Amino acid sequence: MRILVAQINPIVGDFEGNTRKIIQALDHGRTKQADIVVFSELVLCGYPPEDLLLHSSFIEANQHFLEKIVQASSRLMAVVGVVRANPAKREKPILNSAAIIHDGKLLGFQDKQLLPTYDVFDERRYFEPGTSAKIWELKGKKIGVMICEDIWQHAGIVTDTDYAHDPVLDFKSLNPDVVFNISSSPYQFEKPGTRVKVCAKCATTLNCPVILCCQVGANDQLVFDGYSLYVNSKGEPVQAAKGFVEDEMLIDLDKPPLPYTFSCDPMHDLYQALVLGVRDYFHKQGFKKGCFGLSGGIDSALVACIVVDALGKENVLAVTMPSRYSSKGSITDSEVLARRLGIELQQIPIEKPFQAFLDLLEPSFKGKPEDITEENMQARIRGMILMAISNKHGYIVMSTGNKSEIALGYCTLYGDMVGGLGVLSDVTKQQVYALARWINRNQGIIPESIIDKVPSAELRENQKDTDSLPEYDTLDKVVQGYVEDDLTPDEIGKKHAIPIEIVLDLIHRIHRAEYKRRQLPPGIRVSKKAFRVGRSYPIVQRWM
Amino acid sequence: MRILVAQINPIVGDFEGNTRKIIQALDHGRTKQADIVVFSELVLCGYPPEDLLLHSSFIEANQHFLEKIVQASSRLMAVVGVVRANPAKREKPILNSAAIIHDGKLLGFQDKQLLPTYDVFDERRYFEPGTSAKIWELKGKKIGVMICEDIWQHAGIVTDTDYAHDPVLDFKSLNPDVVFNISSSPYQFEKPGTRVKVCAKCATTLNCPVILCCQVGANDQLVFDGYSLYVNSKGEPVQAAKGFVEDEMLIDLDKPPLPYTFSCDPMHDLYQALVLGVRDYFHKQGFKKGCFGLSGGIDSALVACIVVDALGKENVLAVTMPSRYSSKGSITDSEVLARRLGIELQQIPIEKPFQAFLDLLEPSFKGKPEDITEENMQARIRGMILMAISNKHGYIVMSTGNKSEIALGYCTLYGDMVGGLGVLSDVTKQQVYALARWINRNQGIIPESIIDKVPSAELRENQKDTDSLPEYDTLDKVVQGYVEDDLTPDEIGKKHAIPIEIVLDLIHRIHRAEYKRRQLPPGIRVSKKAFRVGRSYPIVQRWM
Repeated sequence: MRILVAQINPIVGDFEGNTRKIIQALDHGRTKQADIVVFSELVLCGYPPEDLLLHSSFIEANQHFLEKIVQASSRLMAVVGVVRANPAKREKPILNSAAIIHDGKLLGFQDKQLLPTYDVFDERRYFEPGTSAKIWELKGKKIGVMICEDIWQHAGIVTDTDYAHDPVLDFKSLNPDVVFNISSSPYQFEKPGTRVKVCAKCATTLNCPVILCCQVGANDQLVFDGYSLYVNSKGEPVQAAKGFVEDEMLIDLDKPPLPYTFSCDPMHDLYQALVLGVRDYFHKQGFKKGCFGLSGGIDSALVACIVVDALGKENVLAVTMPSRYSSKGSITDSEVLARRLGIELQQIPIEKPFQAFLDLLEPSFKGKPEDITEENMQARIRGMILMAISNKHGYIVMSTGNKSEIALGYCTLYGDMVGGLGVLSDVTKQQVYALARWINRNQGIIPESIIDKVPSAELRENQKDTDSLPEYDTLDKVVQGYVEDDLTPDEIGKKHAIPIEIVLDLIHRIHRAEYKRRQLPPGIRVSKKAFRVGRSYPIVQRWM
Repeated sequence: MRILVAQINPIVGDFEGNTRKIIQALDHGRTKQADIVVFSELVLCGYPPEDLLLHSSFIEANQHFLEKIVQASSRLMAVVGVVRANPAKREKPILNSAAIIHDGKLLGFQDKQLLPTYDVFDERRYFEPGTSAKIWELKGKKIGVMICEDIWQHAGIVTDTDYAHDPVLDFKSLNPDVVFNISSSPYQFEKPGTRVKVCAKCATTLNCPVILCCQVGANDQLVFDGYSLYVNSKGEPVQAAKGFVEDEMLIDLDKPPLPYTFSCDPMHDLYQALVLGVRDYFHKQGFKKGCFGLSGGIDSALVACIVVDALGKENVLAVTMPSRYSSKGSITDSEVLARRLGIELQQIPIEKPFQAFLDLLEPSFKGKPEDITEENMQARIRGMILMAISNKHGYIVMSTGNKSEIALGYCTLYGDMVGGLGVLSDVTKQQVYALARWINRNQGIIPESIIDKVPSAELRENQKDTDSLPEYDTLDKVVQGYVEDDLTPDEIGKKHAIPIEIVLDLIHRIHRAEYKRRQLPPGIRVSKKAFRVGRSYPIVQRWM
């Protein structure tokens, strides 16, 4: 039996386009003499559709385009992720389903049973859980289908929820010969390896191969990394699709697989996730050109590299906006980097509007010393310049702030926080350094002087980040421990030997900055827990 | 039997403060010879706690402070909304419960059965549903307790969800003599009247009085209006607590109630909701002083009135920031209003920084005609000035944009959209006019020239809102129909006799502005469906 795993990149709500891709993959399946073509979860409408699911016309479109796919399925079985109306009168009116199609007929549906409602997932908001496990037969083989979360709990991986029910065990008594899991499982750092474990556990329990079909591509803040997977009945990975691109993986269940080791490089993946996050955000909306402020610091240098890979150097504009406090190195470093990347660099000094604002506000500020106001003003003038260029020339501005500074609010609302997309919002400062070194692994692209310089916002004389922040090494441990790993302050302090009062102070500062993050541009999510997507805290609260 | 309904204003996570208020109400209960004191849903931790519920220490704090309340309950029964750990091993580890306390003992819990997971509610993210209905006895009377949503579906009011189960019917066979419903039911326009219907339906089904205890106060974007309610077994409202303030309502079940009609004025309520939304956002965070741009238009004039009532005139700074395009009337009207309200008005003209930016960007803009860039620039200079004043003098900036312009993105990111709180983000332009007339109902506060003038952003020569927007009457009907009432384009067109192509164009523009709203300041929610709280749409999508 031959199976084509079609790892495609759908666009949310683009039923025409997604259907075209699906039918094309069916054609490829026939060409490659596949018996079955498998697609990812909710591939027809794209994932995550969010409140579009509340529109009856959106649900009807699933039905309408599914019929077209059924018509195009001659001589094939196909497994296609769709939304369908819930035929039972239950709490929610729709189901997250796999349509099982064979040779021009819709055989039926397998509904998703476990609906994740935590972190970035809110499936209980929309869907009713499915209640039964079914077997589909083809060429004498018994096929089981599960959807994403249905197999995760069985591997003991789900920590946020403890489902009463285990769909994998439902299938055990049905003795499937092969199981498909169709997924839209967003990327997070080091997650691709976790999926191998999840599939392996399911395969060994059911004593049959598990074939995982994943979505690829980015939609808004979520990146889907692909890496569709074939695991044999012993739980060994035997084949995988590519990461971060559309791919088709042809599996022959009857042929002994070649020796194989699943491996992926975490830094390579993180970088590719960011590149794909930028590219799809732009291209899926029909935008080509991006601009950002190139400060001479490491964050914007990394953004420059990512954006060039995502959009092409001809579509990238870097703007350096020196002030009275900018070091000379910042400008020359920016020039070197722009030259190496082959991107346009405009220099627009901010002194004149800065002075105009200082003069204008002098009566209002009289008698008050210089403080953070003047620093924020400079950052906001830079934000204004970038937005003016965006408006006049049709660039989308990218924000360059990293997760560590966003965690503590070490950033200026309407200043360096402006932009349509936050490229590094979910990347800690330590990861920024690691990515820069990874980029430079073969040849010097980012000037070493950028990597080596002491981090500074350069908004006042001799400013250093550590005037306001602890060392990034400490900060990142607390951010990861508290935000990503849900550790208590005590646990963080003990794990990293950081004094508890420092841990508590940083956690308080994380909560106090909530109001700033409420207006953060959408940022590409690459960690277990990002700010502003899958994490929701009140601004007004007295707990922390 | 005498019941004290304690309608208090808790702060999320303020266990000390909330417990103090609860114990104080217990003292009042004893003084007033009440048998029972009833509190609102999740009163102990405040509502909505959001992801604070994921911290085990937050759950333990509920337990810890509940013990203090139990100790303070001598000679009384008390019904207190708390979070508790789920004793059963089920999907979610906590329950949304009412603790039933009597004379120093914790008798047990009634758990919430129906967990709303739609609109602003995400209770399935955190809570496991309760499964049983219990009766508590006092002085020979059988008492039932339900929590908020538990009684809503029974009245046929819940449209987003169709629960399989009806807790009201569970109680029918238990024959309660009185039922308490403890709620944290956020205000929306004309909702207080709906609650009367919900309680009435429950009362007539169970043939017993229903006593509703509501939360009051605002937390972040949600306003809780209070209006706790006593409905007799015939479904007639017989007593209500005040709206928008803390209140205690003493009910004597054995005395025939006085003649009573429940009535509330929708405009009065809407205004009070906005005032309370501002006041609690400020005071619960420890802020006193607010500032905003006073443009001479009706939106900022309305905001001025609201903010004065919320913070006191001595804490309010209005800033008028005329440009080369400002009409003379805009400045004089602002002066008249500021004088009538007794607030400080600063005038800071924006011409100089505007010219500085034009000069600076001249090389970059060469050969391009004037366009929206220059308009946005002026709005952003105003935003910068307000933020500078905020930074230097400790004011929180309020954003003055209304729901109609936010719907279409007729507003400038980082310009008029700056601020810590959007006062009118959920108020349509028509409602802005209605509120202005309501404010002026007894005496002229807002100058008539402000109310009468043709709406304009005054960002270019002779600009009018209708250059870019349809008449607000049309726009508001589409916004309400599409965003609030979930009507299809066809239904909206037919209902209001608006050509379908206009309806569709406006809906497309609503979706296209999603990226701007992603960075909207939190706004006070006063409608059935607000942007950015309880409404979640992808930016990248091709459906609309």
